[in-house]
Amino acid sequence: MSIITLTTDFGLKDHYAASMKGVMLSINSGANIVDITHEIKPQDVEHAAYVILCAYPHFPANTIHVVVVDPGVGTSRNILVVAAFDQIFIGPDNGVFSYILDQSGSTITRALENASLFLPDISNTFHGRDIMAPVAARLSTGTSFESVGGIIENPVRLASIKPKESPGQVNGRIIHVDGFGNLVTNISEDMIRGWTLELRVGPIRLNSIEPAYANVPDGEYLAIIGSSGFVEIAKNQASAHIPDQLTRGTPVIIKNLTS
Amino acid sequence: MSIITLTTDFGLKDHYAASMKGVMLSINSGANIVDITHEIKPQDVEHAAYVILCAYPHFPANTIHVVVVDPGVGTSRNILVVAAFDQIFIGPDNGVFSYILDQSGSTITRALENASLFLPDISNTFHGRDIMAPVAARLSTGTSFESVGGIIENPVRLASIKPKESPGQVNGRIIHVDGFGNLVTNISEDMIRGWTLELRVGPIRLNSIEPAYANVPDGEYLAIIGSSGFVEIAKNQASAHIPDQLTRGTPVIIKNLTS
Amino acid sequence: MSIITLTTDFGLKDHYAASMKGVMLSINSGANIVDITHEIKPQDVEHAAYVILCAYPHFPANTIHVVVVDPGVGTSRNILVVAAFDQIFIGPDNGVFSYILDQSGSTITRALENASLFLPDISNTFHGRDIMAPVAARLSTGTSFESVGGIIENPVRLASIKPKESPGQVNGRIIHVDGFGNLVTNISEDMIRGWTLELRVGPIRLNSIEPAYANVPDGEYLAIIGSSGFVEIAKNQASAHIPDQLTRGTPVIIKNLTS
Repeated sequence: MSIITLTTDFGLKDHYAASMKGVMLSINSGANIVDITHEIKPQDVEHAAYVILCAYPHFPANTIHVVVVDPGVGTSRNILVVAAFDQIFIGPDNGVFSYILDQSGSTITRALENASLFLPDISNTFHGRDIMAPVAARLSTGTSFESVGGIIENPVRLASIKPKESPGQVNGRIIHVDGFGNLVTNISEDMIRGWTLELRVGPIRLNSIEPAYANVPDGEYLAIIGSSGFVEIAKNQASAHIPDQLTRGTPVIIKNLTS
Repeated sequence: MSIITLTTDFGLKDHYAASMKGVMLSINSGANIVDITHEIKPQDVEHAAYVILCAYPHFPANTIHVVVVDPGVGTSRNILVVAAFDQIFIGPDNGVFSYILDQSGSTITRALENASLFLPDISNTFHGRDIMAPVAARLSTGTSFESVGGIIENPVRLASIKPKESPGQVNGRIIHVDGFGNLVTNISEDMIRGWTLELRVGPIRLNSIEPAYANVPDGEYLAIIGSSGFVEIAKNQASAHIPDQLTRGTPVIIKNLTS
Repeated sequence: MSIITLTTDFGLKDHYAASMKGVMLSINSGANIVDITHEIKPQDVEHAAYVILCAYPHFPANTIHVVVVDPGVGTSRNILVVAAFDQIFIGPDNGVFSYILDQSGSTITRALENASLFLPDISNTFHGRDIMAPVAARLSTGTSFESVGGIIENPVRLASIKPKESPGQVNGRIIHVDGFGNLVTNISEDMIRGWTLELRVGPIRLNSIEPAYANVPDGEYLAIIGSSGFVEIAKNQASAHIPDQLTRGTPVIIKNLTS
């Protein structure tokens, strides 16, 4: 059974995600459609780029991921079909696959140009339903990746997800605030392995990576390795998020005190 | 694989939708259950009527749609089973299928009366689980539409979704505010095709239908044809909704200036 | 097709639930994964215990329920695998299956100890994905319940869901506030059958169980038997919830006036 995932900013009160599912099931009634989230903040490409980066590694080969965060819908922006990590990613050319491209050594990116794969009528406002959904469904039934369109050399890129590494120091940033209020950084576990560390973020100073949230008293800050391998700043049993102070984009510095 | 969709006002923090799924899968383990939304505003029949109208066209023939927005549960209100557009619609007789009936030339509406199709124990508060879910599952496994109950001639109707059309003018209204804050009207593209138009809604005056949100500067109002074929009033990259001023029910007038 | 349900406090804006689905589908591509809810209040074990109690009865035998509300993740707390009601329940040993254990005469509880059933790499923060999801998927493909680990005699228990019954009186409490604002008590229909009753909760006095919300005027309080068989205090067409006054934990007393 082919798996197709959906990541959108449609929210859950409208029929938009369901319309895409109806289109896909009309083409491939055996598709197994999995929602990653429809609660991307409206038009927040960076949020979507993070979520798809964290979600894909747990899906089997040949999974097709459709990401619809598309403020440029109706303009001449391309739609991309990216082959990376033995999976396929479909979404607008606005940076949404930027972190996938940062992390993957080998990718091929094509433009979605072959209109014979689309629905016959294309709206101006909903290419997720009219273009991306039918193409995902057709790819899941054997349409070849090569047939979608020509290769794109320079897709739109966000600021790299990779932090600046120098000997004994990593300069990173908060790249995501999750639903618990955990602050996910772009500094991964292997960059600081074995360090006697000092972590600085806003007014916070931390000197250890804890193995469990519950290792500190309720409401206290800690650093922990999150489930995608990134250092997170968290509070036990509470949200660590402070809007405008500890939030996405806030710099995070980790130093090795013994280097 | 039979498709059954769910549209409810249950929200997502309770087990109510999952209970319906358990009931349906107990009867038809092969049912493919698709959520349209569970975020209909509580008891908002008009919201549900709009959502199911927009969702159904993208599903294949024989899809069964269950809509549970049911403030009258436990009273003597009927439950309807409607055959329209080669699909089946099940829900309380409170207007929820009103727009489906407005748009479909040929429908048959039956009352859900055949208790042998229900669960053995019927609660007073959850007919979605005890009556509608098992009937949907049984219809998906071959129980005939005719067996559910007798024909209903006059189901409850909301105000028609059709606007008032006169030569060179359409008087409509906002029928839905979507999750992005787009204001969906009941005026469809074909009613104003070729017009040199003036659109009036509240204090807003617009003179064109744009092909893309991004055709106007961020935060400015525009009119666009939405994905269900209705004229929408939107703001690029922002919400167009103003409670009590530009909201559901607000009149929208489009005139043809050259007629 | 094996059914696996998910009940978590992950919310819907992150990829966490989808990651669990990817893990499960990688092991059992035929698993039918049903969301019960991901909107359990963060770390609210009591909320989760109530939701899974109400959800399981509608699922067929052999359904596997995974509940991830896990503030102790990364500590030495056990993970439980419970056999009850011909179904399987997997979750942390923090009381989340307490109400299931209260209601089931016959249960077997094992600790999840057999690491050969887990993912090869175990994070410190996401045992739902790394331990519970793969075990659920393996159980759905035939791995035996006995193989997961040894029997646990004394799992963590919450305050019993059972009220205090004496002749002509039941002293209970509100155990859940649902998304409509209905106040669900732990007093079940059979405890008060045939009574000429007086119900007291906060300042409210009620003397009847209504058959329908609509039996009282809009906005008035009523008592009704909810869909899980518990007495609920509700308001017709409105929320009955008053924070700090009529909320979870508030005592509810029902007396039989003729006893």
